[in-house]
Amino acid sequence: MERSFIKPMDEYQELRINFDRFKKRLNEINRIGAMEGGGVCRLSLSDEDKAARDLLKRWTQELDIELEIDQIGNMFLTLPGETNEPCVMTGSHLDTVGTGGLFDGPLGVLGGLEIIETLRENRIRPKRTLKVANFTNEEGVRFTPDMMGSLAFKKGISIDELHGIESVDGKVLLGDELIRIGYKGKFEPGHFPVSAFVEIHIEQGPILENEGLNIGAVTKVQGIYWTEYTILGRAAHAGTTPIELRKDAGLVAAQLTAFVREKANELDGVGTVGITEVSPNLINVVPEKVRLTTDLRHPEKEKLKKFQSEVDEKIKALCDQENTRFERKERVRFDPVDLSGEVAGAIQEQAQKLGFSSKRMISGAGHDAQMMAAICPTSMIFVPSVDGISHNIEEFTKDEDLDRGINVLLHVMLDLANR
Amino acid sequence: MERSFIKPMDEYQELRINFDRFKKRLNEINRIGAMEGGGVCRLSLSDEDKAARDLLKRWTQELDIELEIDQIGNMFLTLPGETNEPCVMTGSHLDTVGTGGLFDGPLGVLGGLEIIETLRENRIRPKRTLKVANFTNEEGVRFTPDMMGSLAFKKGISIDELHGIESVDGKVLLGDELIRIGYKGKFEPGHFPVSAFVEIHIEQGPILENEGLNIGAVTKVQGIYWTEYTILGRAAHAGTTPIELRKDAGLVAAQLTAFVREKANELDGVGTVGITEVSPNLINVVPEKVRLTTDLRHPEKEKLKKFQSEVDEKIKALCDQENTRFERKERVRFDPVDLSGEVAGAIQEQAQKLGFSSKRMISGAGHDAQMMAAICPTSMIFVPSVDGISHNIEEFTKDEDLDRGINVLLHVMLDLANR
Repeated sequence: MERSFIKPMDEYQELRINFDRFKKRLNEINRIGAMEGGGVCRLSLSDEDKAARDLLKRWTQELDIELEIDQIGNMFLTLPGETNEPCVMTGSHLDTVGTGGLFDGPLGVLGGLEIIETLRENRIRPKRTLKVANFTNEEGVRFTPDMMGSLAFKKGISIDELHGIESVDGKVLLGDELIRIGYKGKFEPGHFPVSAFVEIHIEQGPILENEGLNIGAVTKVQGIYWTEYTILGRAAHAGTTPIELRKDAGLVAAQLTAFVREKANELDGVGTVGITEVSPNLINVVPEKVRLTTDLRHPEKEKLKKFQSEVDEKIKALCDQENTRFERKERVRFDPVDLSGEVAGAIQEQAQKLGFSSKRMISGAGHDAQMMAAICPTSMIFVPSVDGISHNIEEFTKDEDLDRGINVLLHVMLDLANR
Repeated sequence: MERSFIKPMDEYQELRINFDRFKKRLNEINRIGAMEGGGVCRLSLSDEDKAARDLLKRWTQELDIELEIDQIGNMFLTLPGETNEPCVMTGSHLDTVGTGGLFDGPLGVLGGLEIIETLRENRIRPKRTLKVANFTNEEGVRFTPDMMGSLAFKKGISIDELHGIESVDGKVLLGDELIRIGYKGKFEPGHFPVSAFVEIHIEQGPILENEGLNIGAVTKVQGIYWTEYTILGRAAHAGTTPIELRKDAGLVAAQLTAFVREKANELDGVGTVGITEVSPNLINVVPEKVRLTTDLRHPEKEKLKKFQSEVDEKIKALCDQENTRFERKERVRFDPVDLSGEVAGAIQEQAQKLGFSSKRMISGAGHDAQMMAAICPTSMIFVPSVDGISHNIEEFTKDEDLDRGINVLLHVMLDLANR
């Protein structure tokens, strides 16, 4: 190649991605699993996931980009650097939730592909190799846990254990599905060293939009605790059972739901009761049983643990008061993850050079980046989500915001690959 | 007949029903619509209701008891008195809810039949005629409103309007179903005058059992207001949406549920949120929509109206606070009904003579008696419900309590028929 990255960074200051090319690929991917009304359903290791992977593979073949696939199905595209120094990586995932939007995931994979193409057509060979990952099963809908490919990449779980995981519907094994769709690769997960990781993703929340900012530089992923409670009371006639003799599971659920909000405010975290299922659910019968879930999140581990323990104490007290009892099942325990202030700084610096406003922020959702943070300096680039909507067919990010974000990613990758 | 009721009451003090005969008939009726596990499903005007009516009819034929059927299907059994004075009536209903118990309804109808048999075999002819009613559609499950037969009997609704009512599933008209099962009778509802009405029924609540009492003498039926609310918020990601930007329909529902309990305590009524349906009902999505119902009851009309209006004001305030809105649908508005203190007094007097403990009480549930109260002095005899359970296959009342109750009814009927 003519131009090498040994030249000063400033020489590439005018470099920009080809947004139309990116958008065309995004649209093409999103025809796979397209839903009526605008969303996408591309569950991990499904036929749709296979089709999206096949399309990505075809593009790498057409463009003569080296592609590696590991034993959990993670796909890595490579732009070779001038040296053998550990690579700089970007990437995200092509799988979606059941009623997924168009951006959650594909933006990070196809944004990375666009950067490789931009560099190649400009004959730029960076000092470090660049890699673009499509991580397997980030969403965790068909198989749990979520963020599975990146968890495997950081060697957080053995490949045998992963292959033995049953699908949520109990019908298939993950290892068999990988073979069926043709994406059980040869490499052991984590088969190359990484010097830094940057993931571009839609914010999935309303903060950037509300504050009128272009770019978020993520310094932390808040912790997530999911818990399922089943409150067991006694069904009773709503007219003939005096208040003091009731064992109203619905009341306890309601009081707990109100408490979760109170505590979230007090501890400056977020807390949600998303599932509430009442039985027998009849107008004139005191609820006998309620299944509810709490989703508690906080950027600080100690405060998150306190939040959880206060909810646990509260439900105990509420059940005692109403003569009910409860069962409790821990569903998810992800502690907060610190990302790299240095990489976040690089994101803000490149955003500024490109004339975009930015702020440091905390990710409310989990991402592959939080797994990568265990093995290398990591940050994320957030772009605004209209109305903060995500995991919804109405998920939307404007073209100019996607364009800004991928251009920031381009320059951050160049910056990091030159270090 | 040899013995007439002209003789002093004391002469019949030793008179008792034949409990085994009653219980045999009760068991026979409850084989119709029997459910696995012990309950009964005999929805009004269904094939099961027809079969139960046919059995009752067969018994009247075997015993040569006069039977009248009116245009809404109410069935009246007659024991002629010595005079033409307005009759004394008892009765209840043979229809049940979808998961009905063995006693709610049949006790009152078959208890009445047993009294006619007891008097006949003892050759007692009371001064006033006795009537035993099987009222149509007390439960209101297949067709609304509930307490339909007694509502028609008190001429609270026209027979044409009744015949035009569609079943809840929209498939049939009530008038057609009456014809289909052969119980559209010739009499206009309310075709004879009634001097007093006494209904025996299980309490369906735990008060008598808790206080160790045998008999309740009902002086009032509390009012019942049912309202359905739909709270409309916005679905949002549970991790990425800051608390202050949420429109959490689930939180509003929870806060309202807690408020209903608080107000019930404060106003000394009962209040229940029986139905709570959340969408999308996912662990990590802020609830977008909740449908909930309130069931508010109070013996005093003014307090019941205050209860309802405070709930309406509260949901408005809660929705404003959370940037949500709500829709509201009135489902039922039954004001409280005063029953007859004099008839309740007769119940307590006869209970005492028979050696049973009793108290005056308020009915928490609606009954045919509350319709009859509009046309004649009316009260109800309550017998204890084990654990207060009703509208449930576990509904249970002990034999000795059934026996006590029907014997009290026997003597109250004799007393009233002699006045």
